[in-house]
Amino acid sequence: MAEGDGATADIQGLIPRTASGPDVSLEELQLAVRNHSLPLEALRYDLTPVGMHYLLIHWDIPQVDVDSWRLEVGGSVQKRRTLTLDDLKRMPRVSAQVTLECAGNGRARFSPRPISQPWLFEAVGNAEWTGTPLRHLLEASGPFASAVDVVFTGLDRGVQGGIEQDYERSLSVAEAGRDEVLLAYEMNGQPLTPQHGFPLRLVVPGWYGMTHVKWLRSITLVDAPFRGYQQEPAYHLASSDEDPGVPVTRILPRSLMVPPGIPDFMSRIRYLSPGDYTLQGRAWSGHGAISHVQVSIDGGKTWDDAELGSAAAEFAWRSWRYEWHAEAGEHELCCRAADAAGNVQPLTTTWNAQGMCNNAVQRVKVVVGTGVVPVQPPAGA
Amino acid sequence: MAEGDGATADIQGLIPRTASGPDVSLEELQLAVRNHSLPLEALRYDLTPVGMHYLLIHWDIPQVDVDSWRLEVGGSVQKRRTLTLDDLKRMPRVSAQVTLECAGNGRARFSPRPISQPWLFEAVGNAEWTGTPLRHLLEASGPFASAVDVVFTGLDRGVQGGIEQDYERSLSVAEAGRDEVLLAYEMNGQPLTPQHGFPLRLVVPGWYGMTHVKWLRSITLVDAPFRGYQQEPAYHLASSDEDPGVPVTRILPRSLMVPPGIPDFMSRIRYLSPGDYTLQGRAWSGHGAISHVQVSIDGGKTWDDAELGSAAAEFAWRSWRYEWHAEAGEHELCCRAADAAGNVQPLTTTWNAQGMCNNAVQRVKVVVGTGVVPVQPPAGA
Repeated sequence: MAEGDGATADIQGLIPRTASGPDVSLEELQLAVRNHSLPLEALRYDLTPVGMHYLLIHWDIPQVDVDSWRLEVGGSVQKRRTLTLDDLKRMPRVSAQVTLECAGNGRARFSPRPISQPWLFEAVGNAEWTGTPLRHLLEASGPFASAVDVVFTGLDRGVQGGIEQDYERSLSVAEAGRDEVLLAYEMNGQPLTPQHGFPLRLVVPGWYGMTHVKWLRSITLVDAPFRGYQQEPAYHLASSDEDPGVPVTRILPRSLMVPPGIPDFMSRIRYLSPGDYTLQGRAWSGHGAISHVQVSIDGGKTWDDAELGSAAAEFAWRSWRYEWHAEAGEHELCCRAADAAGNVQPLTTTWNAQGMCNNAVQRVKVVVGTGVVPVQPPAGA
Repeated sequence: MAEGDGATADIQGLIPRTASGPDVSLEELQLAVRNHSLPLEALRYDLTPVGMHYLLIHWDIPQVDVDSWRLEVGGSVQKRRTLTLDDLKRMPRVSAQVTLECAGNGRARFSPRPISQPWLFEAVGNAEWTGTPLRHLLEASGPFASAVDVVFTGLDRGVQGGIEQDYERSLSVAEAGRDEVLLAYEMNGQPLTPQHGFPLRLVVPGWYGMTHVKWLRSITLVDAPFRGYQQEPAYHLASSDEDPGVPVTRILPRSLMVPPGIPDFMSRIRYLSPGDYTLQGRAWSGHGAISHVQVSIDGGKTWDDAELGSAAAEFAWRSWRYEWHAEAGEHELCCRAADAAGNVQPLTTTWNAQGMCNNAVQRVKVVVGTGVVPVQPPAGA
């Protein structure tokens, strides 16, 4: 797990720079055109179809030959193991719907904007993940009592913050042993696609996306807290470059709506005719069940309760709906979620140096007028 | 096919504006995070997997109930028809590999940059499309001799250039009758995904992506040249907002390479150790077979022939490879393609007001040095 000597030419420091203005550089655009978020109308699907689920890939998508691929389990354990994909498929099989969200979701709405993948508010997806509980594999390996962290290493390798590295993240032994943590080899009933981590990825329900290591090649128990780049300094809520900050872990509550009406190509402003509409969307939190969702049709001045649908699983998003009588004029629609742990989605969040966890409310501009064909939001959900 | 009254508030004019600087506005970013291009390492796959093929969706992805969906064939024909998807599947079935590319690919490399979807150079994909030849359906409908254009209308609706509209494009009767033109209901052996046009889309091999109308709902023969927004003024090579310009049609030659080595997260600069590498990539053109590909390792000063692989089909991309001895230092790798019609990919293209057809050569910055683990480009291709 030793990280290689850093390549030093033309690469940035440990902590992201901050943009001087709201506009996005061509450097950031390179990331924006590679990675992609959920098209908001795809909130209509209970399970996000392949190709619409958000993707954040730090370096290149590895090419994996599944016949030669192996998962190595080692480090501070009594029994080191080398497993094939078939070995893993012979272990207990579990499926669960889990909503994944990038920790940097909302980054491009911060001002000044930390320079990294410039997400707006849509880096999310909800999928059914199938695999084997990590707990069984850990127990069968016999961790020594001295082990404190479990390190997950992917096959993806690159340079970040001046450090050449494999993608690596860790969990505490206790967190890794949660019943829900999966080594997943299927997504929505199909083998993982290359971009989602084929042949095997980690799924840690409730945590932000950086934790769900893709293209897993090894699981290593270690006796000292893991401090690889993606664990520290990356993915921390820090007030400045000097502040070490606190680690990003579980997903804060967020709600998003399917924008009603039809969009303008460039501005994405929505157009619709006066009348009755059902606003629909999803809400999720990694800290507890969604307890309520509220909708505002006046840009956040006043709020009204939405009707909650059922959640398919503890860590899957929950649907909501709200009946709206749209009157002529320009409106700003918002929604906000709260969870059972008492977290409420805020109108604005505190700026932080890496642009993490910006769960400020979504704002959808709509123009209600005549001369526009009425369009109902999609039914279902 | 009459277009609705235009909504007029907060929407732009007919022709895209031009950006005052190189940076991308949050408005453009909204498009960049919705749509996505091919991750360059995915050039390794003969067939682009679902979720990696480029996508450009003008408005929202429609939700289609296939049981109530119908294709209407009408206008200047002897026999109007209404077809179900099963009706189309009972007609002759053909599969073909076709490379699709967005006409706006390369737009964000123009200076000044026309404001629209800010593509760099990767808005491409190669898929196997399965469907029924359009020709049979047209012949069975008995077009009147007066018909000049065939208009294809999608279920996607929105506002663009101040005009509320369905997505509509046309082909001349002669072009629509080409053997290769397909009404496609499968992509890579699976039903079309929602984002690629489920349940039916047009595939016009050789033409840029705007022609391949998704979510088809009607095919209408008309006796006068079609002039809907997406046909005119959109998708024209024009020197200014006042110049009507000439229509964009077939794909100009382009080649792209799989960047060697490993990337830096932000800059995407590539790092590798000195040694022997096989550079690999793809080349394609809608004007004729790829006749040669050349590679430059000095930023376009000198060029050397690459070795061409076979093309799977007339309108599919062709693989190429080039053996490169990487010496320490910084290099700029380029590739350029030429086709049998005599078109050669240029170092720079002429600016145009809509940012169309920028097939200037790709430039890949690499740093070859020690302290960097050698990484071979993926094998295969």
